[in-house]
Amino acid sequence: MACELFYWPGIQGRGEFVRLALEEAGEEYADVARGAGGVDALMAVLKEGPTPSFAPPFLRTDGMTIGQTAAILMFLGERHGLAPQDSAGRLWTHQLQLTIADLVNEAHDTHHPVGNSLYYEDQQEEARRRASEFTSARIPKFFHYFSHVLGEKDYLLGLQITYADLSLFQTLEGLDYAFPKATARALARHPNLAALRRRVAERPRIAAYLRSPRRIPFNEEGIFRRYPELDC
Amino acid sequence: MACELFYWPGIQGRGEFVRLALEEAGEEYADVARGAGGVDALMAVLKEGPTPSFAPPFLRTDGMTIGQTAAILMFLGERHGLAPQDSAGRLWTHQLQLTIADLVNEAHDTHHPVGNSLYYEDQQEEARRRASEFTSARIPKFFHYFSHVLGEKDYLLGLQITYADLSLFQTLEGLDYAFPKATARALARHPNLAALRRRVAERPRIAAYLRSPRRIPFNEEGIFRRYPELDC
Repeated sequence: MACELFYWPGIQGRGEFVRLALEEAGEEYADVARGAGGVDALMAVLKEGPTPSFAPPFLRTDGMTIGQTAAILMFLGERHGLAPQDSAGRLWTHQLQLTIADLVNEAHDTHHPVGNSLYYEDQQEEARRRASEFTSARIPKFFHYFSHVLGEKDYLLGLQITYADLSLFQTLEGLDYAFPKATARALARHPNLAALRRRVAERPRIAAYLRSPRRIPFNEEGIFRRYPELDC
Repeated sequence: MACELFYWPGIQGRGEFVRLALEEAGEEYADVARGAGGVDALMAVLKEGPTPSFAPPFLRTDGMTIGQTAAILMFLGERHGLAPQDSAGRLWTHQLQLTIADLVNEAHDTHHPVGNSLYYEDQQEEARRRASEFTSARIPKFFHYFSHVLGEKDYLLGLQITYADLSLFQTLEGLDYAFPKATARALARHPNLAALRRRVAERPRIAAYLRSPRRIPFNEEGIFRRYPELDC
């Protein structure tokens, strides 16, 4: 079951949520657009076949092509035991993932509130207004929610890690990169989230991945961008 | 299996995607916050129990509470045959739903690019810039994608309707309400999408629902808002 991930090279982006699940599962995969074929190899497959994707990331494995981050994770969750097998547990994991995705979308919109086709520099004032709401109201609200769900447990669903824990870890990493002051403030109020972040980072396969060249550093092309003027 | 939908009264919003699935399935449900208990009844349940929701809509049935529109639809799709039963078909339906949700999010952001805590009137100029990109580039791109997926088929997956068709119908209705000029222009290029929209509207249970008082009219509190200055 050769596994190919198709995502933009050069950024973590939404592909990173998929990479973390593949890495935690120990599944070998090709990160296609980072190989010799580059973005051309990605574009050649994007709209192809009976289940085309609107945008990367998408995964090709076992004769299937699956797009949309949350759908890919649901698939990997079933394949690798990164989600419960019963229907209620599967749905709850997915609900958490979709709520994390909402937070990630809002984080992205802080630097591009007026539109993706414009440069950040052309919407800096609007970005400042949007980021102010994000750091002062939205981060605290989302953290409060996830902290409540996590409670005293090791992971969001209990003793077993799921893809939602990996995604929440990635989101905390990203927010800490983009908004270090606001994130530190919010994490100080929810030490169980800070502990979850450490717990995931210390898992042997995740730790090895984070140290490897496969982990692309955060940068100002991705979802989480460090513009100090937005971190208040 | 009594079924309770919890969503804001007074708007279609994201709850409408759930309502359409329930209506097409012929499942009886209580629209809780539109009943005597109002929003208080919703808020009392929102953060309750082992699977709390970050925000409405959420569904309570069979002892489960499920939040996040796409997760609710996945559940209803399995229960009512509004999605294929095999794993690949279920994932593909879900992938389409998540792509529709991306379009819906972008539609929402046209009128609140700078933030939800501000009035539309305080971000009208930014809304104009964002809506211009949305109507000129994003609507055409999404329509092209869904038209390609639909092809000559009756529904997105073939002869059988799925929840993704219902959601695409609702999105086309909403875009036509909010951006009648831009939507008519884009639909004229993709007559198969216009045909899908009619096909869904004419299904007996959907037609009856749309005529009933259960269907809340579009208005300027929901996701799709008619601000003529944004429709270019």
